[in-house]
Amino acid sequence: MENELTLNEIYRASYALKSIIRKTNLVISPSIRKDCEIYIKPENLQVTGSFKVRGASYMISQLSDEERKHGVIACSAGNHAQGVALAAKAYGIKATICLPKGAPISKVEATRSYGAEICLVPGVYDDAYKRALELKDEKNMTFVHPFDDIKVIAGQGTIGLEIMNEMADVDAIIVPVGGGGLISGVAYAAKQLNPNVKVYGVQAQGAPSMVKSLEHDQIKSLVKVSTIADGIAVKQPGNYTYDFCKKWVDKIVTVSDDEVCAAILLLLEKHKLIAEGAGAVSVAAAMFGHIPLEGKKAVCVVSGGNIDVTSLNRIINRGLQMNGRQFTVALEIKDRPGELVNIATLIAKSGANITAISHERTNSDINVNSCVLRITMETRDINHIEEIKEALINNKFNIIKEK
Amino acid sequence: MENELTLNEIYRASYALKSIIRKTNLVISPSIRKDCEIYIKPENLQVTGSFKVRGASYMISQLSDEERKHGVIACSAGNHAQGVALAAKAYGIKATICLPKGAPISKVEATRSYGAEICLVPGVYDDAYKRALELKDEKNMTFVHPFDDIKVIAGQGTIGLEIMNEMADVDAIIVPVGGGGLISGVAYAAKQLNPNVKVYGVQAQGAPSMVKSLEHDQIKSLVKVSTIADGIAVKQPGNYTYDFCKKWVDKIVTVSDDEVCAAILLLLEKHKLIAEGAGAVSVAAAMFGHIPLEGKKAVCVVSGGNIDVTSLNRIINRGLQMNGRQFTVALEIKDRPGELVNIATLIAKSGANITAISHERTNSDINVNSCVLRITMETRDINHIEEIKEALINNKFNIIKEK
Repeated sequence: MENELTLNEIYRASYALKSIIRKTNLVISPSIRKDCEIYIKPENLQVTGSFKVRGASYMISQLSDEERKHGVIACSAGNHAQGVALAAKAYGIKATICLPKGAPISKVEATRSYGAEICLVPGVYDDAYKRALELKDEKNMTFVHPFDDIKVIAGQGTIGLEIMNEMADVDAIIVPVGGGGLISGVAYAAKQLNPNVKVYGVQAQGAPSMVKSLEHDQIKSLVKVSTIADGIAVKQPGNYTYDFCKKWVDKIVTVSDDEVCAAILLLLEKHKLIAEGAGAVSVAAAMFGHIPLEGKKAVCVVSGGNIDVTSLNRIINRGLQMNGRQFTVALEIKDRPGELVNIATLIAKSGANITAISHERTNSDINVNSCVLRITMETRDINHIEEIKEALINNKFNIIKEK
Repeated sequence: MENELTLNEIYRASYALKSIIRKTNLVISPSIRKDCEIYIKPENLQVTGSFKVRGASYMISQLSDEERKHGVIACSAGNHAQGVALAAKAYGIKATICLPKGAPISKVEATRSYGAEICLVPGVYDDAYKRALELKDEKNMTFVHPFDDIKVIAGQGTIGLEIMNEMADVDAIIVPVGGGGLISGVAYAAKQLNPNVKVYGVQAQGAPSMVKSLEHDQIKSLVKVSTIADGIAVKQPGNYTYDFCKKWVDKIVTVSDDEVCAAILLLLEKHKLIAEGAGAVSVAAAMFGHIPLEGKKAVCVVSGGNIDVTSLNRIINRGLQMNGRQFTVALEIKDRPGELVNIATLIAKSGANITAISHERTNSDINVNSCVLRITMETRDINHIEEIKEALINNKFNIIKEK
């Protein structure tokens, strides 16, 4: 029975977390979709920049004195590591975090800054995981699983309670799904309070392990995962979390990386919030109509904001392209004076703003006396891009490539 | 007497704004500085992404029925435009916004999206301003000044009230200064409630109009302004705002663009918040020790978050360099096999992670049989960079340039 989740336990977790976590109030978001009332639950503003600190803190709060003495261990290069590190510090116990040696410096430093001992393991994630289990046995430490643990699920479930408390008449909750810990807790809590609330999960197209498992009615393991939403790039659901999703979740959908980029850009521009890929999949699913929400009151959980800042630029550019706000076109032009003037005039007339231009003669795919002009411009929307393309074609410019 | 600000009027503004603005609660920020307790007031999370909506809304709320019938007009390509547009919409009156024809598409569209009529004027800001005044006279519209207006100042002053309400024992408030409307209201409100509160202003080094005016004891106009903090790039303070700053503000300091970039990066990484340059100057001043805050409880007003997303990448890179987390070095190396291996090995040993590399032979400043290798790497901190430089020098590599 100790592996049975109860609403009571989630309430207890909620109380235990009070001194550690921040309040993250719902924010209305009219830009995501016009046909319904959407709010975001900004867990990217949570301490450590993600919801993971909830599950880790509650799990650690429940350890015996004996267990506390030996400390905890976890394996993660991301949000779970920071959550465990901060939670352990809050309870005054030692945390060791194993991560693969190639992990980004910024993530290692962030975890270290919360006071955890870092154990860099040569190899990939699986090697670090193996080492963590060895250390656990050698030193009698408690392993904190990132998702497949009832206490961890209870901690994440506090998000469900908070949403139901702040908005008793919510119709739907949309939750990112990696291993499934967050949605398990949220769905359980929400449905205990109101069985009519719909709970939808969202995975990345490149890492649909829970979707595939539910389709096949058994836990499936993906051979490889590839997505911009690295925080939910999980190869295999947990045993508990699979059961929870099967029982309590209405549907799990997937979103593309491009859709995720557009969602990150929307949160950045309209809400001044940084979301990581995994955190933005819920918004992406609502934005691009993957979930039936017409006339409903819905909450998208934005689960985290720990993004590698150096990748933001690529994401912003993809997002701008997705919205028709950036257009890059490569033209084959005659290599003679005046051609650039003609094109620049045509684009200026259209109201687009050129932001980058390159000119090359060494492209072997084109005529010897032609050259390639690649122009990136700021545009208003998809229609604007269509107008510009039409004008280029009408003026006999040969469009080789566009994006 | 109607040009005399009172605390009473700021309270009235606070009440009038309740239905329009969002609550922006203080957020503790341990990363800005270790020797004091700093909070941020995140007005970047305000509707329209900036505090400007406060002053505009209160000013518009005080118009007579006759004035409302004719609508309002403003001249701005930025936060003030969006504030006026949203406020006018909230009160059901017409807003016209003049802006120079070259204004960024994203800003024009944002203003239009709040329902304002856009009037694009050929030329620069001053031309748009002239046209706005003409239209005001022609059509009997009310001009909403971005800062030099007592009602506008009263509206911005509500931020001072909120800070004093939420943290009665605050020692210092740090406020971005452009035209001076925000700091005038905040300083007045705070000092009326507690004369011991220190209020500090922050301008950009490239636009220090209020600093210069206070130094010369009269309003000074700058010939040109140049800063990444475009929201506070104001050539001349207002008459009212100059008097308020002289009377109520303790000191105004300046920050460099590099310091602003570092502050934007801190807010982005540690708080998952997007601040614009003008919004981050307060944090920059605290971070880089321009204000005496040891042992104090201080609030930095982050006034806005409307940043051009395409410029974020450059800002992030500057911020990383400022923190010693990115290092670019150009080396003169012998043009022979194996040199790249030696350097790459040396850098790998140091624990830095190479993120970009370029190799050129056509640099005319170096020996004919040498070439230039430019390497950008991710580093831990300034000390780490020093170690790497030492290792390069010890191995007889000639450092041509670094940043």
